[in-house]
Amino acid sequence: MIKNSIFGIVQNDLTALEAELLSVIHSPVHLITEISEHLVQAGGKRLRPALYFLCARCGVDHNSPVSIQPLATAIELIHMATLVHDDVIDNSPTRRGIPTANSKWGNQMSVLIGDFLFAKAFSIVASSHVSERVMQVLTEIICSMSEGEIIQNKDTFNPNQSEMEYLDRIAKKTADFIAASCELGALTAKLSDQDVQALREYGYSIGMAFQITDDILDITASTEQLGKPAGNDLLQGIVTLPVLYALQHSPDAAELTRIVSTRGMGQDMLQRGLEIIHATDAVDYSYRLVNEYLNRARQVLPEGMPSEIKEAFLAVAEFVEMRNF
Amino acid sequence: MIKNSIFGIVQNDLTALEAELLSVIHSPVHLITEISEHLVQAGGKRLRPALYFLCARCGVDHNSPVSIQPLATAIELIHMATLVHDDVIDNSPTRRGIPTANSKWGNQMSVLIGDFLFAKAFSIVASSHVSERVMQVLTEIICSMSEGEIIQNKDTFNPNQSEMEYLDRIAKKTADFIAASCELGALTAKLSDQDVQALREYGYSIGMAFQITDDILDITASTEQLGKPAGNDLLQGIVTLPVLYALQHSPDAAELTRIVSTRGMGQDMLQRGLEIIHATDAVDYSYRLVNEYLNRARQVLPEGMPSEIKEAFLAVAEFVEMRNF
Repeated sequence: MIKNSIFGIVQNDLTALEAELLSVIHSPVHLITEISEHLVQAGGKRLRPALYFLCARCGVDHNSPVSIQPLATAIELIHMATLVHDDVIDNSPTRRGIPTANSKWGNQMSVLIGDFLFAKAFSIVASSHVSERVMQVLTEIICSMSEGEIIQNKDTFNPNQSEMEYLDRIAKKTADFIAASCELGALTAKLSDQDVQALREYGYSIGMAFQITDDILDITASTEQLGKPAGNDLLQGIVTLPVLYALQHSPDAAELTRIVSTRGMGQDMLQRGLEIIHATDAVDYSYRLVNEYLNRARQVLPEGMPSEIKEAFLAVAEFVEMRNF
Repeated sequence: MIKNSIFGIVQNDLTALEAELLSVIHSPVHLITEISEHLVQAGGKRLRPALYFLCARCGVDHNSPVSIQPLATAIELIHMATLVHDDVIDNSPTRRGIPTANSKWGNQMSVLIGDFLFAKAFSIVASSHVSERVMQVLTEIICSMSEGEIIQNKDTFNPNQSEMEYLDRIAKKTADFIAASCELGALTAKLSDQDVQALREYGYSIGMAFQITDDILDITASTEQLGKPAGNDLLQGIVTLPVLYALQHSPDAAELTRIVSTRGMGQDMLQRGLEIIHATDAVDYSYRLVNEYLNRARQVLPEGMPSEIKEAFLAVAEFVEMRNF
């Protein structure tokens, strides 16, 4: 089953999720349905709900009739809401090769649709008899993500950042949410506190590895592979790990500092920036960090999980390691 | 006490609210604290929390030690979040005579701060042991508001709207939230279902009257009185009740139709539009509707409330009737 798909064991859950997403975003206001359907159908890896489902299915009775769907739907809606707002903020024309909401319906409508999706997510959770702890995990994660985005936005075009600041920022922006998705699944499965904590750490490490890989791919992959322009982070002034490494180790660090600080750089300058980064071992160094996080993810997995679920968790780590898009 | 302030009876609650707002928005990220403090200090009428407090104080034991603050804080944070996003959408330079967040920190940061305030609001509610019903009222209200804003945005510069569509839009945009604030207070006070419903209707009617007054003032008040440019709705293409009335009753309806449909109109055209509206009895008609809603608000108030609370409810209605800012 895992050979067919890394998320094989929760494939039915993920199929049901797609139907649920299309159902909950339906609004009497036709335009809301239209934009939201575009966003659902634009897809995505569904990594957060997939990990949530995997953790939720760790419970002893993983065929329990209790619905584990609502939280997955809320998790993906919150993720979609942050992406819509991110695309407004970054003025992105495409995501995953598909036109963004802001490029099709404008910034104003995209801000409002993001708010609508946030509200929908909380409305679903409010009707789902979840515990106070689940509610807290979910709300704190949105606080954390907006803090992460605000820090990132504040620090654009600023070459004077430490690796620690970078790691803190991507934790808030990405890893904390993936950690929370695992935690929410583990809480739904009523696992022991120790296992909840272990799966949270697994999610955190996967999330850190995932975001660093994203930041590497921005520098190494082609526009076709990414579904968005390559080198986009540099253009947007977002200073990622390979850039930080090159700023500290390149003989051309002074030139790179000027490039990183330049708003509205042209293609020539962007290419020169990428050249300076590639001339160092910034990419190798960043992949080493990815592998450290992935090893930690593999190590923290709780003992005694059903073997097909453990295999799926390991397959997710492998997927993050190998992905080139 | 009411002579000093229409909200006299809940003045202590409102004072505590200001301190609470400043406390909860504090973030380790200094910029978040700075922008949020600006938003809190820019003030506002605090109408929603004031009505919530009044309803919450309707309970038999209105000196109960149970904290009624968290929900008030959440209500005002949600209101602030929607205002920040509205100002981005309308590209507003000032609100209440004070520079908006978007004019001081840019659109990107304002979108993120709005998300942060939404998240903070839900985070507070999640930790406050509220009932599932309270949670549902609160989440549905954000869905409703974003729907209202999306409808308004979709229908800008469109003179072909009915009065019913206008009323439906302002209900979603404004009145439903004020109704929900009253409902939440009444639920907190553990009033009977009948009284909860009555106070909800009171809030709805106050909200409709409040928004129609707002829309009238945009046409009759001066820029100084408003703290934002007069005629702003017309400039933004937002078609309000007096405009709709004039479109249906003015001998110059054809000219007004062209003006209402014009994006980026100049001051001359705006003044001509206002002249056409003022030549009809659009403002009188709109005030008649305001008074119908206010009368309904006064009539639905539950029997047997403490007299000082009933007086405060009546004073709020009078405030909406008389306000010219």
